[in-house]
Amino acid sequence: MRLEHDSLGSLEVPNFAYYGIQTERNRQAFDISDLTLEDFPSFIEAVAKIKAACARTNLEIGALDKEKAQAIEQAAWEVIRREFDYSLPVCIYRGSGTPLNAGVNEVVAHRANEILTGNKEGGGIHPSTHVNMAQSSNDVIPTAKAIVVHDQLEIIIEPLKVLIKKLREKGEEFSSVIKMGRTGLQDAVPITLGQQLNAFASGMERSLSRLEYEKSHWNYSCLGGTAVGTGMGCLPGFRGKVNKHLSDVLGYEVKAYDDLVDGMMAIDDLIACHGQVVALSAQVWKLARDLRVMASGPNSGLREVYFEVKNPENALNPQRFASCSLESVITACNQVSANNSSILFGLKNGWLDLGACSSIPLRAMINSATMLKEAMRILTEEVLPSMRVNSQLCQDMAESSVSNTTMISTIFGYEVGSQVAHLALEENISPREAAKKLKILPDEVIDELFDVSNLTHPENMEALFEKYKDFRKL
Amino acid sequence: MRLEHDSLGSLEVPNFAYYGIQTERNRQAFDISDLTLEDFPSFIEAVAKIKAACARTNLEIGALDKEKAQAIEQAAWEVIRREFDYSLPVCIYRGSGTPLNAGVNEVVAHRANEILTGNKEGGGIHPSTHVNMAQSSNDVIPTAKAIVVHDQLEIIIEPLKVLIKKLREKGEEFSSVIKMGRTGLQDAVPITLGQQLNAFASGMERSLSRLEYEKSHWNYSCLGGTAVGTGMGCLPGFRGKVNKHLSDVLGYEVKAYDDLVDGMMAIDDLIACHGQVVALSAQVWKLARDLRVMASGPNSGLREVYFEVKNPENALNPQRFASCSLESVITACNQVSANNSSILFGLKNGWLDLGACSSIPLRAMINSATMLKEAMRILTEEVLPSMRVNSQLCQDMAESSVSNTTMISTIFGYEVGSQVAHLALEENISPREAAKKLKILPDEVIDELFDVSNLTHPENMEALFEKYKDFRKL
Amino acid sequence: MRLEHDSLGSLEVPNFAYYGIQTERNRQAFDISDLTLEDFPSFIEAVAKIKAACARTNLEIGALDKEKAQAIEQAAWEVIRREFDYSLPVCIYRGSGTPLNAGVNEVVAHRANEILTGNKEGGGIHPSTHVNMAQSSNDVIPTAKAIVVHDQLEIIIEPLKVLIKKLREKGEEFSSVIKMGRTGLQDAVPITLGQQLNAFASGMERSLSRLEYEKSHWNYSCLGGTAVGTGMGCLPGFRGKVNKHLSDVLGYEVKAYDDLVDGMMAIDDLIACHGQVVALSAQVWKLARDLRVMASGPNSGLREVYFEVKNPENALNPQRFASCSLESVITACNQVSANNSSILFGLKNGWLDLGACSSIPLRAMINSATMLKEAMRILTEEVLPSMRVNSQLCQDMAESSVSNTTMISTIFGYEVGSQVAHLALEENISPREAAKKLKILPDEVIDELFDVSNLTHPENMEALFEKYKDFRKL
Amino acid sequence: MRLEHDSLGSLEVPNFAYYGIQTERNRQAFDISDLTLEDFPSFIEAVAKIKAACARTNLEIGALDKEKAQAIEQAAWEVIRREFDYSLPVCIYRGSGTPLNAGVNEVVAHRANEILTGNKEGGGIHPSTHVNMAQSSNDVIPTAKAIVVHDQLEIIIEPLKVLIKKLREKGEEFSSVIKMGRTGLQDAVPITLGQQLNAFASGMERSLSRLEYEKSHWNYSCLGGTAVGTGMGCLPGFRGKVNKHLSDVLGYEVKAYDDLVDGMMAIDDLIACHGQVVALSAQVWKLARDLRVMASGPNSGLREVYFEVKNPENALNPQRFASCSLESVITACNQVSANNSSILFGLKNGWLDLGACSSIPLRAMINSATMLKEAMRILTEEVLPSMRVNSQLCQDMAESSVSNTTMISTIFGYEVGSQVAHLALEENISPREAAKKLKILPDEVIDELFDVSNLTHPENMEALFEKYKDFRKL
Repeated sequence: MRLEHDSLGSLEVPNFAYYGIQTERNRQAFDISDLTLEDFPSFIEAVAKIKAACARTNLEIGALDKEKAQAIEQAAWEVIRREFDYSLPVCIYRGSGTPLNAGVNEVVAHRANEILTGNKEGGGIHPSTHVNMAQSSNDVIPTAKAIVVHDQLEIIIEPLKVLIKKLREKGEEFSSVIKMGRTGLQDAVPITLGQQLNAFASGMERSLSRLEYEKSHWNYSCLGGTAVGTGMGCLPGFRGKVNKHLSDVLGYEVKAYDDLVDGMMAIDDLIACHGQVVALSAQVWKLARDLRVMASGPNSGLREVYFEVKNPENALNPQRFASCSLESVITACNQVSANNSSILFGLKNGWLDLGACSSIPLRAMINSATMLKEAMRILTEEVLPSMRVNSQLCQDMAESSVSNTTMISTIFGYEVGSQVAHLALEENISPREAAKKLKILPDEVIDELFDVSNLTHPENMEALFEKYKDFRKL
Repeated sequence: MRLEHDSLGSLEVPNFAYYGIQTERNRQAFDISDLTLEDFPSFIEAVAKIKAACARTNLEIGALDKEKAQAIEQAAWEVIRREFDYSLPVCIYRGSGTPLNAGVNEVVAHRANEILTGNKEGGGIHPSTHVNMAQSSNDVIPTAKAIVVHDQLEIIIEPLKVLIKKLREKGEEFSSVIKMGRTGLQDAVPITLGQQLNAFASGMERSLSRLEYEKSHWNYSCLGGTAVGTGMGCLPGFRGKVNKHLSDVLGYEVKAYDDLVDGMMAIDDLIACHGQVVALSAQVWKLARDLRVMASGPNSGLREVYFEVKNPENALNPQRFASCSLESVITACNQVSANNSSILFGLKNGWLDLGACSSIPLRAMINSATMLKEAMRILTEEVLPSMRVNSQLCQDMAESSVSNTTMISTIFGYEVGSQVAHLALEENISPREAAKKLKILPDEVIDELFDVSNLTHPENMEALFEKYKDFRKL
Repeated sequence: MRLEHDSLGSLEVPNFAYYGIQTERNRQAFDISDLTLEDFPSFIEAVAKIKAACARTNLEIGALDKEKAQAIEQAAWEVIRREFDYSLPVCIYRGSGTPLNAGVNEVVAHRANEILTGNKEGGGIHPSTHVNMAQSSNDVIPTAKAIVVHDQLEIIIEPLKVLIKKLREKGEEFSSVIKMGRTGLQDAVPITLGQQLNAFASGMERSLSRLEYEKSHWNYSCLGGTAVGTGMGCLPGFRGKVNKHLSDVLGYEVKAYDDLVDGMMAIDDLIACHGQVVALSAQVWKLARDLRVMASGPNSGLREVYFEVKNPENALNPQRFASCSLESVITACNQVSANNSSILFGLKNGWLDLGACSSIPLRAMINSATMLKEAMRILTEEVLPSMRVNSQLCQDMAESSVSNTTMISTIFGYEVGSQVAHLALEENISPREAAKKLKILPDEVIDELFDVSNLTHPENMEALFEKYKDFRKL
Repeated sequence: MRLEHDSLGSLEVPNFAYYGIQTERNRQAFDISDLTLEDFPSFIEAVAKIKAACARTNLEIGALDKEKAQAIEQAAWEVIRREFDYSLPVCIYRGSGTPLNAGVNEVVAHRANEILTGNKEGGGIHPSTHVNMAQSSNDVIPTAKAIVVHDQLEIIIEPLKVLIKKLREKGEEFSSVIKMGRTGLQDAVPITLGQQLNAFASGMERSLSRLEYEKSHWNYSCLGGTAVGTGMGCLPGFRGKVNKHLSDVLGYEVKAYDDLVDGMMAIDDLIACHGQVVALSAQVWKLARDLRVMASGPNSGLREVYFEVKNPENALNPQRFASCSLESVITACNQVSANNSSILFGLKNGWLDLGACSSIPLRAMINSATMLKEAMRILTEEVLPSMRVNSQLCQDMAESSVSNTTMISTIFGYEVGSQVAHLALEENISPREAAKKLKILPDEVIDELFDVSNLTHPENMEALFEKYKDFRKL
């Protein structure tokens, strides 16, 4: 153990630890759950990137000498690349980010000292005086939040693109599988499985475009705002230069918020951003839930699709295993919906000049991104590739729909269509047979009008209308 | 009473009613609440606009003769302009929009007949055969939804612009009121009231830009998709021409969804859109809640601001009345947050090829827009104009903060700053006095460093640093 | 118009109005939505009951003379019985209940004057001095809240009892309909439709018992607590006597909160109470949703049940109409779930000594009760009576399940059961046929073991085990 | 590595692992998050207790021989007591509990074999055939759920009792601290800090009683119901005897659900239960939030209370550290509110005969219990013991309230009270001085009427009324 000091006294810290007395105080004080800062590596990484950028800036403005600045930056990069084994054993339910900023300051300072002298305490680099300098948790943490959200959006966007591609592929593969379309779980009119899968792809392309737009809101920095955005205590020159260095460290351009006071007290951006994530999660959820309904069976459900799975848990019904994969997707997406509450309740408990109350909302965002990424992966890699179709059953069901009499209604008016439908229902025959029985048209015309491969394609239907326009009575 | 007929039999309908047998059946069947379709005039209006556009299209493609088409369009416009007293007494909890489409068909048909012959049943125009023709509730209602959402976003955007303008005005007016900035409800460093109000304006400008982007997603139509987006039963030529006519009717351009199947089963767009609305509502809520905290008093609260109100309910404390105005704003914004649940639960109960389950999510969206519009109006017209400041009290409090020693810390390091702060706390004197007592700098320099009008402006602080840079010890 | 006065000046009030200047001020000040106090008659009624009880108490303690007290009480009873046409046109989003208390004070005072003199302003009864006397909105409104919640719970409990009875009836009727039981939407083992409906009845009996317990929490009064529960300004004797009179007026016994300060600042009780309501709504929702799945069809769904409906909207598929009834139930229950958010967000925006922020949470509770009552009524009166079963189809599906091999597994171990199941799956034959083909037991034993009417009744299964215990190999 | 086999083939399992091939399949298949079954030891423990009880039952009914039964029970107890290092590395987002049941079966079987022979695979005990026997995940998991919820309620109840006791203690300690009572954050009338703390205690006693009632709902078992509650495949005698053995293992009495089908498909109970937990969390949250408001400062907030903390993170403002403790409590309670959404969304995604979709709702319940327990501990051990009061400031503020004129209003009517209040406001003097200036009563009477120690106690006020009743004019 080594003894560390601050203005309040002394405390023992384990020798192996890169963290210091502040972290030790926080560790002792807060133990509300086992979840600690180190369970959120992306958040630590973001703060370390800021420390690297600040060291460069402080060197440039003459606030740090070269040796210290370079040691600090090198230490920060080692944290970013996880090159040594540091820990930050502070409970995540602990407040507003101050312990995270303080903890990274300590780890970076001790490692920088070690780089310079081989001794954690030997190089004269102090966590507050040299690493933190004139920053504040209040400008560091919102900036780190922006970096984390930016990264989480990328974590969602990549597997989303892959899922869309897979849906288009399967949409093509199943483009001629004609099945019943349903509204309100009741038989409606024929549709192809390909049209259904492509519709999911189309919807997700919309989400993709929204998420790309969303990402453009997270290239902002609060650095230089210090405690409440007014910049009190910020070193001269720092504010003007730090974001250029931060852009270099991050590999993409960030700029200062137009209004730093706004940047620090804002609670809207995470709500708006997570709303987009929930919207995507609803699409992913719907795909999984709809597939689960379509795969209900194997004997007494809709039985439209099934899954050729290799390692089923339940030998008696391999579908049950696939159903569990879909359940995982559904569950993950429900978690994303529920995270919306964490964000709203969390953000509505901040006051006045610092908007956020704790890092819980950000944690919810990170969790949503992880959940959604994995849910999309399961669909792309496990569910869709193993999906098979009971094509004949699908087609038979599609042909049975009395709604197929719509074509008759359109040409002869509702009354006639309705007559065909009623006959079909009464005698329990297909509407095609009913139409023939009523002799409303020549049999071969009826066959064309009830051909489900025509009934799912607008062009074919238009061609039929054109061909039989003389029959039409308005 | 008049007797109407359909394929299922006959039913009496009141003579005065423009609605018909379908609406009467729906009225009798569903009475889950007093809230009926006519409580959502914007929704009825949107469907009537679609009817006008469809009549024009059906005329153009030869599906309707000129007399009928013109009578239908005229009747639809009369509905839009609310020129006669129709009613649609069907409970809103009734399903997925079918009764709305059917009801508007009936009203338009009966009114069109009346226009032609003076008799609701006399003109040969049938609600289904001529007004609805080959449309489906399933393509009409999602299209109406898009129109309604588009309009609701405009309903939000206009008062938002006015509120931003008012915040900028008051931000300017109060730009020299220096007060305590707070983080976690604890004293932090000085800020101006102007900076706080401008920060809200800045944040709301971000929301404004997001909402404008959002609006661009609601220029889409499903018309021609019929029951499930495949267009079964759609008349030849209709799909290609209807959106041009709809654009003319609406006064802004709409186009078909790239994928009509997607357009009908999508549940993401309303979630994403309402997420943006919730984000704005959180800003409006925070403004009201923060003002309420700042106005706590009149004697034993923060007392930073108060409201010069003319007609207080409580003569003993006029502030209580203003507090109630703020409470209305808070309550309205909370309702918007709660509406998010209506939307999520509602949309997750649709299945397969028709995404939406009922019109409840849309109703929630309409309610959110109304709530938010009124909340912003109250802030703009009542709260902000009547706000007054206890300037001297604000300044005295700002000067008392031990955090003002940050300037000392930045120049002399944390240890010295901390020494000043501790002395101030111990002897219960202002940090300025403590600094003087410790004689760390000439008195006039200390006065400059603790001048709160400097401490809220980055430029002044940089100038001070520059001026006293020789004192700086790193 | 008549001119009314208060300490702040004068204002015109319509002659017909029983409300007065305070209500007029509130009406002018708040117009956030069209929803006004009079849309919540149960809330007005509860306050009027309190006024009746207070008049009696004030008479007893000598604070009111007999003539005034009796006129006030009579007027209050007329409000309760809605015997004259008063209105309270104040927006519901207006605050914490003060306008409701003030409004009822005014209506009661003006009506009492009218009773005494034929003139609303003639009898010398003043809304504040004589009707309100030493009460406070802060003790009146929480007491009214308790009365309203008590009544809303009764509104739920009655139709719940009727629904349970109907479920038991139908459970009996369908006790021999054997169908597939499903887990995760996959075929599991046979169950009877009667068992399913009885299970819903059993679950709802649990909710019934919980709601009865819940009701016992709402017999409490805050009267006499005045502004914050300390009773400042309460007239001597009032606190000790008022709850006896209130019990008489209400017809059930109420007592004072043990701790009046708690009674006024509490936010837990409505949350706990609504949690119970949401729990019931989830059961009602599940019943409707499960029936909708079981009724999916008519040709290409599960088709286990259907609904014999008389007035279908859609002649082509009468089931669609029944599906819409179920959708109404689902939608109403979702609204109850969403109301939970209104309650949580609402209650978390009160501060310190008055817990509630606005009457919105109570409004949500009233809405939930109405929704749930109607949802249960639709199930009891429309859905369940019209439900019919495709018994043969149900039985055929039940017999097809490979899970029926469980009986084999239990007797011969998993390996043998699994062998039978795999053969059934491979050759697409029923497990009974597969078992016979494998000759693992005499055919007649196999027939007994696969008889689905045995497989749904524990006693029959135990009897089979007993009969064939010699075959068992552990 | 050792090679294990099942009907689907073989798979390598690490030699050290007590789990087997099923768990290995599940581990490989699901990796949606790092959270695994072993992060929920209470859930594993509950299943192991069931296994112990089932082994005893199976011995009693002759389904297991004594050696095997005893080894299985011993192994189960070792799991319960965590006596050896097993692991269940299966992602928690994996479905409905099947992997948990299968995993515990494997661990218990392998450990039982080891007990018998020193070899995990040597004793002839098979996870399915001997440990699971005729149970189903579908009856084991809901029973385990009940055990877990029962235990979680105890986890909440104990610290709740301690917190109530501490609140009563501090309520007593601060019973003579008179301070401003506030409604809507505006000054109302005096109250004592003791009254406020006791009110929280009173409210929490209500929650305590509700939670005790709630606990009585979780003494139920589904054992013997097998897949859907019909008991198919359950061994003769098992159902009648298992719950007695389970009661012995648990140490409290459990009985079978009246209706096992209900027990398996029910989704209401966890919703109702968590509603109670949310209600308590709202009380705990309000206590922390209100204290945070009351402790706002140290110089420019309400400054009524502060915290004498030993190890502040921020030397300049030790209150900030205490504020962070309160923030942890607030955050933990918000997480409980948010968990409500996890439960609702989770439970609404189960279908038909198995209500629950996944173990996520149960996980949310466990999380809520942990959060709440820690939040209450922080209040009891850290916050309340270190709370100190600025008594003089509190009293001065209490005396400044114009609402203290209520006593005048009650005696002389609203007009006179209002006159005093207006004078106090106009001349910015205390209402006591204003009353004297207006000479409405002898000075010494006024002094008594404005004595805040009287104004917070009903008895004193009644005594005053009695004493000065002759001044009263109605």
